[in-house]
Order: sequence, then structure tokens, then C-alpha cells
Amino acid sequence: MTKSRLEAFSDGVIAIIITIMVLELRAPEHADRFSDLRSLVPKFLCYVLSFVYVGIYWVNHHHLLHASRGISGGILWANLHLLFWLSLVPFVTAWMGENGFASEPTAAYGAVLMLAGAAYLVLEWSINAAYPGDAPLARAVGRDRKAMLSVALYAVAIGAAFFSPWASGGLYAVVAAMWLVPDRRIERALAKG
Amino acid sequence: MTKSRLEAFSDGVIAIIITIMVLELRAPEHADRFSDLRSLVPKFLCYVLSFVYVGIYWVNHHHLLHASRGISGGILWANLHLLFWLSLVPFVTAWMGENGFASEPTAAYGAVLMLAGAAYLVLEWSINAAYPGDAPLARAVGRDRKAMLSVALYAVAIGAAFFSPWASGGLYAVVAAMWLVPDRRIERALAKG
Amino acid sequence: MTKSRLEAFSDGVIAIIITIMVLELRAPEHADRFSDLRSLVPKFLCYVLSFVYVGIYWVNHHHLLHASRGISGGILWANLHLLFWLSLVPFVTAWMGENGFASEPTAAYGAVLMLAGAAYLVLEWSINAAYPGDAPLARAVGRDRKAMLSVALYAVAIGAAFFSPWASGGLYAVVAAMWLVPDRRIERALAKG
Amino acid sequence: MTKSRLEAFSDGVIAIIITIMVLELRAPEHADRFSDLRSLVPKFLCYVLSFVYVGIYWVNHHHLLHASRGISGGILWANLHLLFWLSLVPFVTAWMGENGFASEPTAAYGAVLMLAGAAYLVLEWSINAAYPGDAPLARAVGRDRKAMLSVALYAVAIGAAFFSPWASGGLYAVVAAMWLVPDRRIERALAKG
Repeated sequence: MTKSRLEAFSDGVIAIIITIMVLELRAPEHADRFSDLRSLVPKFLCYVLSFVYVGIYWVNHHHLLHASRGISGGILWANLHLLFWLSLVPFVTAWMGENGFASEPTAAYGAVLMLAGAAYLVLEWSINAAYPGDAPLARAVGRDRKAMLSVALYAVAIGAAFFSPWASGGLYAVVAAMWLVPDRRIERALAKG
Repeated sequence: MTKSRLEAFSDGVIAIIITIMVLELRAPEHADRFSDLRSLVPKFLCYVLSFVYVGIYWVNHHHLLHASRGISGGILWANLHLLFWLSLVPFVTAWMGENGFASEPTAAYGAVLMLAGAAYLVLEWSINAAYPGDAPLARAVGRDRKAMLSVALYAVAIGAAFFSPWASGGLYAVVAAMWLVPDRRIERALAKG
Repeated sequence: MTKSRLEAFSDGVIAIIITIMVLELRAPEHADRFSDLRSLVPKFLCYVLSFVYVGIYWVNHHHLLHASRGISGGILWANLHLLFWLSLVPFVTAWMGENGFASEPTAAYGAVLMLAGAAYLVLEWSINAAYPGDAPLARAVGRDRKAMLSVALYAVAIGAAFFSPWASGGLYAVVAAMWLVPDRRIERALAKG
Repeated sequence: MTKSRLEAFSDGVIAIIITIMVLELRAPEHADRFSDLRSLVPKFLCYVLSFVYVGIYWVNHHHLLHASRGISGGILWANLHLLFWLSLVPFVTAWMGENGFASEPTAAYGAVLMLAGAAYLVLEWSINAAYPGDAPLARAVGRDRKAMLSVALYAVAIGAAFFSPWASGGLYAVVAAMWLVPDRRIERALAKG
């Protein structure tokens, strides 16, 4: 009961985060040409990137809680902490998009991703601490290493943003791809367990 | 468990998409006459059309997942892909509404509908691939043909938008009606199965 | 399964409708005095009224679907039809609030309430048609008469708006109170059944 | 069934409230320096405070309804009453943030917190009245004293806002901390019961 309500609340928050970002793509008024949309291209690219990221978080959150046997008070707060950083994704997406991948907004984007990644690890550790010795969870720790690598790559991307924001953008796309592709392998492992 | 959470998340996203479109209908300030609403009429028509479309997607999504025996990683991502294109519906609705069914916005509206329709087919195929030989799903393929026809009609409507946007609008309404009316027949088939 | 998903989707839409109305209460910028909020008073009153109305719809929707044994295609669409009119409540609330209960916005508010009320009756009839001879539902028809009376009172209020918008506002408050107060009696009847 | 739908609806409303507040953090346009974010700092602090408060309400609401054996009509309305005051949190957060913790907005923030706190107590009493002599609920009354103390502290903070708004802000943070920290103790008691 408790677990399903935590999932429902997290689903609600993540669904809103993923959807309100589209409000940033404001349709230009009295401008009915495709060429009028040109200024929206960087915003659109940022939207796609963030949609994929929030989608990845939703999928991983789904797997992680599926692997947890229950919910403690610490897990509730670690979950809210993760949702807090995710809730800032629309803000940094808008800032990066409006300024066409300028250095500082691109670094800020990476910082929010890094903090969300760290919050995800904290949530994982909270579950591990509350239910130690849990086999499906232990297997899920395979993701843990990937999450730690992601946090390291975000740190690199933040630094790179001051030299070449497009390199940062590329790194963000690489990390996203890293999560998209081998996801199925882990899931199959979970399905077998 | 997994399936119900996918449904809950999709319901959340679709509920937000269908509802935030109404934010485009901004009440005119210091304008308290019915005639002040005249400029909102095309926006309102676009809102009605999009509400019906998103409603149709929700109903079909509901039937499709009901017919699926479970959820794989591929289905999760195919579902997010569908939600991505649906999330652009408020944007193209606003653009088409603000420009009173001008050619290019009307074509863009059709393009998003076409991509959402294609994403729906991809989701259907993902479910078919994950759970082959499933009877209620096979029967649901009846919808498949309708979905393919819809995608073709959207393509026609996109082309027509450059000659007569109102013809495109009419086509969008026809496709919507096509989904609204015989829906019950398929559902009865599913209920029998 | 089907019924719970219909409820979840409706809950999502109603939750969004009831919450986005507060976005109309825009905090005045560079205005930090209580007196700066004075212009928000009619908006706030409209917000309270609409919050109560949407709350009433949620409660009644909850009871009505609880009484229904299942969901047919017709019920799905009757439900979306109800949600459509409810989705216009934030728009008319904003229009009435911004114009301080002027005649035409106040009439428009009543029109949306009346159409939502009629849509509620259509939903009730759809459920009755799909599952005839259902005892808890038959008992729920007690609400039916109240719903029809409400629709009639909205019609009176729409007419009254052109003479005295405040009388209309009073009528809207009376209808709301009518639903708030004796609700418990019916619920007790349902609980006994 | 009834209880889970009340939870789902409340989750939806609270998820929207907690997420739309981030829309207030509007990314500055054509301003791509970290220093351009300086003016957002008070808004961000307010956002953090309100996120924590709404999170606390979600956690407590979760515990409270978990402890309740069922739902009556009175509980439905007491719950909507709580959601109403919570729905005003984004408004007062925006007002306080835009005016950098000025006296009157800071007092208004406290007033909404106080009314939400009172509404929480009313909800608790409604549950107690509907299901008297309930052991887990009786134990939950431990929270009751904390809720009453919070309401008293909000009253002090409202008064203090006219002399030193930062002292009020500090008090709001103290009350939040009070709920964050010993939450686990009560939860353990509930888990034992």
C-alpha cells in the first residue's frame, strides 16, 4: 500500500515535470511560417534531451522501487530529495534553451543532472540500508556503477561547458544513450531473478 | 504491478497534456463582452479538436495496454516515445489556433498527429514482439489498420494544408470521427474475447 | 482494472483543473502590501467558488463510478465529455474574476456549469443504460433530481446575470451549498446498501 | 477502493502544487551568466522552503490516511479543505519570493501555512470522529500535538514578520526541521503497532 502510494506520487511529479517543459516551447504569435520556428530549435533540442533524461529517471525509479521490499521514512525523504532536483530540470532546460547552449546555462544544466544523479544514488543507498541483503536490489547495484560513472561524466561536462558547450551537450547525449541502450540487459537479469 | 505503474504514469502525462491546452485560452483582460471572445474562436476549435484527439489516444492506449500481457523494456521506451509526440500536441494546437488555421501551422499540426500515430503503431508492434501469438492483441490489430489509414490521411492533410488549410482541418475532424464512431464495435469484440 | 484506470485518469484531469486555477492568482510584482492584493479579491472569490464546484464534481464522480459495476465504451466517452466541460472552468473563472463579476462573463460561467451539469447527467444515463437495474445506482438517482434542479438553476442564473450579476453569483453559491450539505445523507444511504 | 481513490486524488493535487511552484523560477531571457540568476535567489529559497513544506504535508497525509480505517463524507470534505489551503502555497511563495521576504508577504505565507495546519488538524479530527477508538490513529495523535505547536509557531512568525521578516523565515525553517527530524520515531511506532 505504502509503496504503491509513493510510486503514484512520484509518477505524478515526474509526469508533470516531463510535461510542463513543453510550455517553454511557446508558439510564436502572428508568425505562421516554419521559418518563424527557427529560434525555437535550440529550445526544442533541450526539450528532447530533458524529456529523455526525465524518462530515464522514471524508468530507473520504476525498477529501483520495484526491487525494494518496502518503504521507510528515510526512503520517503530520499525520494522527495530526488524529486526536488528533478523539479529543477525544467528551469535549467529553459535557461539553456533560451540562451542557445551558452557556457554557464549549459554548466548549470549539468549541475542539476549531477545533483539528481547523486540524489538517485542516495535513494538507492537508503533502500539498501533499510532492506540489507536483498538479492534483486543487489543485482540492481549494477546500475549503481553506471550512476556513479554518470555523475563523474556530468562533472566533466560541467567543466567542458566553459570551453565548448557543444562538447558538454554531446556528453549529456552520450550519458543518456548509455542509459537507453543497455537498460534491457539489466531488466532481463531482473526478470530472471 | 509494472503494467499498472506504466498506465498510471501515462495517465498522468496524458491528463496533463489534455488539461494544459486550456491555458492557451487566455481570458481577455478588461474585456467583458462575448464579442471580446471572438478572437478566441479558432483557438477554441483547435482546443476541441485536440481534446478529442488526446482523448482518443487515451482510450486506445487504455485498450492496447489492457490487451498486453506484460511490459518489457522496449514497451517502456515505445510508450515514452508515444508520449513525447503527444506532448507536442499543445504546442502545435497553440500555433495553429493563434494563426487561425494558416497553412504551415496546420501542416505542423498534422505532422505531430502523424508522428504520434506512427509512435502508436511502434508501441503496438513492440507489444506484439514481446508477447507474440496473443489472441486479444491479434484482434486489436483491427485497430492497426485504422491507425495505418489515419497516418496516411494525416500525410494527405499535411499536403492539403498548403492549398486549403480548411480541407486539412476537415480531414483531421474526419479521422477523429473515424475513431470515435466504430470504437464500440472493437471494444465489444474485446469484451467477448 | 478498466474502472480503476478511468478513475485514475479522471482524478488526474480533475486534480489538474482544480490546481491550475490558482495560477490565475498571479502575485503582483514589486508590490509587497496587503492593499496590493485588493484587485485580486474578485479573482480569489471566483477561485473559491470554482474550487468548491470542481471539488463537488470530484466527490460526485467518485460516488457515481463507485456505484457503477463496470465501464463501457459509451461511458468512456461520456466521461471525457464531462471532463471537457470541466476543463473550461478555469477559463470562465479567470474571465469572471478579471472582470469583477461583469454580466457576460458571469453568464458564461453559468453556461459552463450548466453544460458540465448536463454532461454529468449524460454520464449517469450512460451508466444506467449499460448496467440497467442496478440497485446502488438506482439509489444514486436521488442525485439525479438534484443535478436536474441544478441545471435549471444555472439557466436562471445565466438570465439573471444580465440584470444583477451578484444575484447570479449568489445562485451559484446556493447550488454549491445544496450539494455540500445533504451529500452525507445520500452517502449514508449508499453505505447502508 | 474509496480510500485509495482519495489518496490518488490528493497525490495528484499535491504533486501538481509541488511542481508548479518551479514555474515561478522563470529563466531570465538573453541573460546567460550565473550572475543573472542573482535576482532569483530569494525565489529559490522560498521554493526550497515550500517544497519541503508540501513534502511534509504529503508524508503526513500519507501516514494519517494509512492510519484511517475508511472514508466518510466528512473526511472527503475535510481533505478538500486541506487541499484548498495547500493550493494557495504557490501563490504566497511567489509573492514572498518576488518581494524578497518583505513583511506583509512573509506574514501572508505564515497565514497560509497556519490555515493549512489548522485544516490538517480538522482532517485528523474528522477521521477520529468517524472511526473512534482506533489504536494506530490514537498513536498518530502524537503528531497532533506537534501540529498544534506548529500552528502556534506560525502565529508567532506572522507577528514577527512585521518586525523582522528574516526571523519569521527562520521560524518557518525551524518548524519544517521539527517535522523532518523526529518523523522517523513516530513512523517506527506505527510500524510496530
